[in-house]
Amino acid sequence: MIKYLTTVLLSICAILITISTAAQEHPSLILTKEGVEKIKAELSSLPLFDASLQKLKEEIDAEIALGIDTPIPKDYSGGYTHVRHKRNMFVMQQAGVLYQILEDEKYAKYVKDMLLQYESIYKTLPLHPKTRSYAQGKLFWQCLNDSNWLVYVSQAYDCIYNYLSAAERKKLEKNLFRPFADHISVDSPQFYQRVHNHSTWGNAAVGMIGLVMNDKELIDRALYGIPDLEMDKTAKDDDGGFINKEGKAGFLANIEEPFSPDGYYNEGPYYQRYAMYPFLIFAEGLQNVKPELKIFEYKDGVLLKSINALLNLSDADGEFFPLNDGQKGMSYYTDALVTAVDISYYYGNQDPGLLSIAEKQKKVLLDDSGLAVALGVKNGKAKPFIKKSINLSDGPGGKQGGVGILRSDDLELVFKYATQGSSHGHYDKLSYSYYENGDEVLQDYGLARFVNIEQKGGGNYLKENKTWAKQTIAHNTLVQNEKSHYQGKYDIGSKHNPILHVFDDSNSNVQLVSAKETNAYPGTEMHRTMAIIKDDGFEKPFLLDILRVKSDSTNQYDLPFYFMGQVLKTNFEYEVPKILEPLGIDNGYQHLWSEGCGSTTEKNTKLSWLEKGRFYTLTSATSEDDELRFVRIGANDPEFNLRREAGFIIRRKDTDNTLFVSTIEAHGSYSPVSESAVNSNSSISALEVVLDTEDYTAISITTVKDISKLFIVANTNASKEATHTVKINNKNYEWSGSYYFK
Amino acid sequence: MIKYLTTVLLSICAILITISTAAQEHPSLILTKEGVEKIKAELSSLPLFDASLQKLKEEIDAEIALGIDTPIPKDYSGGYTHVRHKRNMFVMQQAGVLYQILEDEKYAKYVKDMLLQYESIYKTLPLHPKTRSYAQGKLFWQCLNDSNWLVYVSQAYDCIYNYLSAAERKKLEKNLFRPFADHISVDSPQFYQRVHNHSTWGNAAVGMIGLVMNDKELIDRALYGIPDLEMDKTAKDDDGGFINKEGKAGFLANIEEPFSPDGYYNEGPYYQRYAMYPFLIFAEGLQNVKPELKIFEYKDGVLLKSINALLNLSDADGEFFPLNDGQKGMSYYTDALVTAVDISYYYGNQDPGLLSIAEKQKKVLLDDSGLAVALGVKNGKAKPFIKKSINLSDGPGGKQGGVGILRSDDLELVFKYATQGSSHGHYDKLSYSYYENGDEVLQDYGLARFVNIEQKGGGNYLKENKTWAKQTIAHNTLVQNEKSHYQGKYDIGSKHNPILHVFDDSNSNVQLVSAKETNAYPGTEMHRTMAIIKDDGFEKPFLLDILRVKSDSTNQYDLPFYFMGQVLKTNFEYEVPKILEPLGIDNGYQHLWSEGCGSTTEKNTKLSWLEKGRFYTLTSATSEDDELRFVRIGANDPEFNLRREAGFIIRRKDTDNTLFVSTIEAHGSYSPVSESAVNSNSSISALEVVLDTEDYTAISITTVKDISKLFIVANTNASKEATHTVKINNKNYEWSGSYYFK
Repeated sequence: MIKYLTTVLLSICAILITISTAAQEHPSLILTKEGVEKIKAELSSLPLFDASLQKLKEEIDAEIALGIDTPIPKDYSGGYTHVRHKRNMFVMQQAGVLYQILEDEKYAKYVKDMLLQYESIYKTLPLHPKTRSYAQGKLFWQCLNDSNWLVYVSQAYDCIYNYLSAAERKKLEKNLFRPFADHISVDSPQFYQRVHNHSTWGNAAVGMIGLVMNDKELIDRALYGIPDLEMDKTAKDDDGGFINKEGKAGFLANIEEPFSPDGYYNEGPYYQRYAMYPFLIFAEGLQNVKPELKIFEYKDGVLLKSINALLNLSDADGEFFPLNDGQKGMSYYTDALVTAVDISYYYGNQDPGLLSIAEKQKKVLLDDSGLAVALGVKNGKAKPFIKKSINLSDGPGGKQGGVGILRSDDLELVFKYATQGSSHGHYDKLSYSYYENGDEVLQDYGLARFVNIEQKGGGNYLKENKTWAKQTIAHNTLVQNEKSHYQGKYDIGSKHNPILHVFDDSNSNVQLVSAKETNAYPGTEMHRTMAIIKDDGFEKPFLLDILRVKSDSTNQYDLPFYFMGQVLKTNFEYEVPKILEPLGIDNGYQHLWSEGCGSTTEKNTKLSWLEKGRFYTLTSATSEDDELRFVRIGANDPEFNLRREAGFIIRRKDTDNTLFVSTIEAHGSYSPVSESAVNSNSSISALEVVLDTEDYTAISITTVKDISKLFIVANTNASKEATHTVKINNKNYEWSGSYYFK
Repeated sequence: MIKYLTTVLLSICAILITISTAAQEHPSLILTKEGVEKIKAELSSLPLFDASLQKLKEEIDAEIALGIDTPIPKDYSGGYTHVRHKRNMFVMQQAGVLYQILEDEKYAKYVKDMLLQYESIYKTLPLHPKTRSYAQGKLFWQCLNDSNWLVYVSQAYDCIYNYLSAAERKKLEKNLFRPFADHISVDSPQFYQRVHNHSTWGNAAVGMIGLVMNDKELIDRALYGIPDLEMDKTAKDDDGGFINKEGKAGFLANIEEPFSPDGYYNEGPYYQRYAMYPFLIFAEGLQNVKPELKIFEYKDGVLLKSINALLNLSDADGEFFPLNDGQKGMSYYTDALVTAVDISYYYGNQDPGLLSIAEKQKKVLLDDSGLAVALGVKNGKAKPFIKKSINLSDGPGGKQGGVGILRSDDLELVFKYATQGSSHGHYDKLSYSYYENGDEVLQDYGLARFVNIEQKGGGNYLKENKTWAKQTIAHNTLVQNEKSHYQGKYDIGSKHNPILHVFDDSNSNVQLVSAKETNAYPGTEMHRTMAIIKDDGFEKPFLLDILRVKSDSTNQYDLPFYFMGQVLKTNFEYEVPKILEPLGIDNGYQHLWSEGCGSTTEKNTKLSWLEKGRFYTLTSATSEDDELRFVRIGANDPEFNLRREAGFIIRRKDTDNTLFVSTIEAHGSYSPVSESAVNSNSSISALEVVLDTEDYTAISITTVKDISKLFIVANTNASKEATHTVKINNKNYEWSGSYYFK
């Protein structure tokens, strides 16, 4: 009996020890014990890894030499206390990693000292003194930044967990980490309990510290949200977005909702990039600590798919298309994408294309995934990451519009027929932007904000973001009666989305995307078909843009073209005014100076411009009643928040149904060094609508060498299998599929 | 006797043979027989040379495959016939070189066939049908382009001279080359007989064909101008420049007059670059055929000095400062500079710095000089070409002002106190531009022209070049009563120039340049001192700008700052207008939109801006009566010929004597990838004039860390040896030399 009891007790002890050991193995989040051993074994043999390590070591050594500062919070973004606490979170995370890899206690001590300093101020810290946020943090002016901090600091804590005494851990957990996690979650449900990139950071922060502390309550709160919490379903945040209309919350809901099955994130690539880090770093932690959750297989592997989607939402230079609120210049060189690329490689299927991006990034994560990438690169496995045309559906089920990207040679069309995009969305249904080799040909304005530049409104959204950047007229899409889509109202916009008509990239010479929108202006249907066509008569592929409008009322339609560059030539007469006046009074029109107005009796309007040594020509089928207007961004801009860039608007008045047909050609080159202009003229002599019925629209494109091509799009039945017969000028055209081109 | 006679006859024969051989050795201009042998011996062993050769071969082979076209001339620059004839001249020259080096007769035959085709059309060719030029050409609309053609084609003819039969040569010389040379010289004296870059091309063209044809008359006409020609000394060309006020002409006069002893070319670097090719290529020909002329030693070796000056007139990217009429983007990557660098290396003292530029150019001349450069590079002799601060005097004797360039770390100040600069000059005395690492901080607008872009006025000067780009208000210098310097009149401007007060780059931490101008506005003296100061209180060197104005009348003064970038912050209140009106009615003011106006009761006006990820701050000591004005270029610009760039103007009214003191700080950085703003604020808390007398001006600069520095400039006696004592606020300051800084 005693023997039996002893055996039982020993077994229980063994189980307890196992549990305890399992629960307490550190590091376990991003670094693992096993991973660290592997890394140590490979040190000095992997250029990419060693370079990243060396660079980090130099940075952190310099920081350590400066001493520790944890100032009492007082500033907005860009101010000293904000910048310092932000820097501290990175430095702690990185010092933690260095401690693990280099086994030098100075790094652990630095993290410990800083954490204890935070512990000593945090326990009595009131809300941050700046009150602009809908959810004030304590270290920062908004809970979002506090969450950022905890995501990083959890990793630091994990790395030095075993270096600390039990008493130190207890002190930190009781006075710093647990109340910190509570503040950003249960104390700030308007921030935490929702589906939003902010909340994803909150979830990850709570979950990661929960994983380190082995705190099931926090882990569950991270994964599933705050239990049994009733939220006001009509409440909105600062940006006008609903806080929690659907009642969904938690990390899994934040994967479920904003990602389409293709991995498109509904707020667009700029915010996906921002949200990506907590998604992936917490997923990595979960995979290491709770592999049974199979987080990377969740929703059919959408986390890894989303990385592929995100990489495809960048131009030739790796810069993300600035859909919705997106600051231009953000690119896959950002650290969040180093994380994304490395994790995608390691936890995905080791796509050699990702290695070529890692090579460009010149950096890897200092963890198992970064090790794998560095090994792959060293072993010569890298291959170019080739971006092809891609259609990315939007909506949790992939049924709510999307973004279609057509790529042909160096040209890229980004066609947006997506959902409102949460509170960061713009009223820009069926708009597009157009790029050549990473440079904007027709721009999407992006946002009116200078992120983290204190001088510009504390680095936050500027009022011109609402009055200009979000408005329809700020985009390359149709504006009816000088009003924005959905009345410029978020709650209306959130109910609707365009419907894909067809996306077809099967023939690399003729690729098209087409979608319809019926709710932006009730009673008006817009149907836009955009094709990139590669044809013998042209030096480069050209863009064909067919925008059909059907309305039960008579309206004024404005179709803007935000061309980048300097006007070279027009084929129409126009007057420039002696004084500049704004084009309108609201909905963004108040920000446009009216720089010129003309008209033409020619069948086509032509405008050519020069940008970065390349020529471009817009050719549009217009009538003599169309107003041809030059505009310049910057009216009513008392603080010079807007860029003084150009636009061209075709305005059609007193019309119900109408058709806008245009081409954009990229052609030729100019070098200020050789001073030689090559192929500086358009290759199109005539662009003509030869048929426009409910079912078919046919466009004839004649080149300067007098060769005519015909493009017909099926407006109603776009199925691949459907066969069509159309008679135009007494000639029958027969084909199957959504379009005809010959 | 018979023996004697035989000996004499044989001797005479030998002499005749020698003379005849000497006169007829070909090639002899750019390539020499001996040089060609050396090149052949080194082929396939010199990467730079071989790459240049291979690239050329591919280009020319492709051209030959296309066949020969010598169309009847009809177009302006950028049009087909212009472009074709221009292309033909290059192709012939290059095919000639390939024939010599590769010994493949197809190249010689191609040149011969094309020349004979030209011969067949030229003999009956009338003047070019376009009449805009003051000197019409035959192949081109202006004699200038005809001269370009002959400079290149002479080289081609030289290369295939021995391939042609005597009859062919006779035919070409009689019907093509001689009448061609006569048309651009004796038939067009208004073009040929002057000191101007156009004439330099003309001289070189006549001289080079003269050297090939061994035609002494042509060679002398090239060197000394058309003999015994009386010119109208008051006649002017299209640009408003005198055609020949001084009666000087010919190649030697064109070296003598426009180059200062330092090698500065009075029209500025853009035109120097253009003129450089004929100067050097004809000089090379002369050196080879008439070494006794010692052309590279002429005027104390000014031709080679001018190459060094020109290289120093480029920014960190090798782009030339756009002084006077200069198109931005032109750089030392242009072919003319390949010629310049190679010739300078070979005929000069083999400066290893030139080799590093040749490496960047990735190209060498396919001649003896290119061979020497390629050998130098191959032998690892290249060293960086380090551009230091430099003062380049202007005027044939170096006594007519100049251009001072101060360089400190990545910052470059270009201070212009030069002569009018011939017909390409701007009314911009004491103006400056400022660069950081090759990017413009405060711009010089450059010209209003799109060289060779047919759509923009045939690629020629646009009317806005006169109405905007040349005017004083288009530059960073003082405008009195909204009038341009010298009444904007070329003949007045040509009589005067600023006087250097001091240039001192001996202390790399405090470098300064200072000059005075008394004739731009009669009765008003402007004295501008600019210093770049490197000081501990600052992250980067800052620019100090002290502009003293003394006038015997009461005036309005405008001091513009054409800052590049987006306004970040001001320390003053300003109003932006509801509608934009031009700032004035003429002298360039009609092209500026008045975008905002304010004032301040602070002692300093501060304006900061962001450009290409860098912050800049202007701090100016102003009074509350000063108007602080934002402007935007682009008013009264009916064809969008002007760039919509920003300016800031400090306007001081009803004043006679006054002092403008400003600093420009470059500081910090912003990356849209890391979204982190570093050191985004000015380091200056106060800028104060503490003394301003006839003899001394003293400025106190206090940093945000409350450290004050004092800068005193001696306004009258700037000699190095002079000692000064000044009492300021009861403290004595003693020093020797032109300035004090501590």
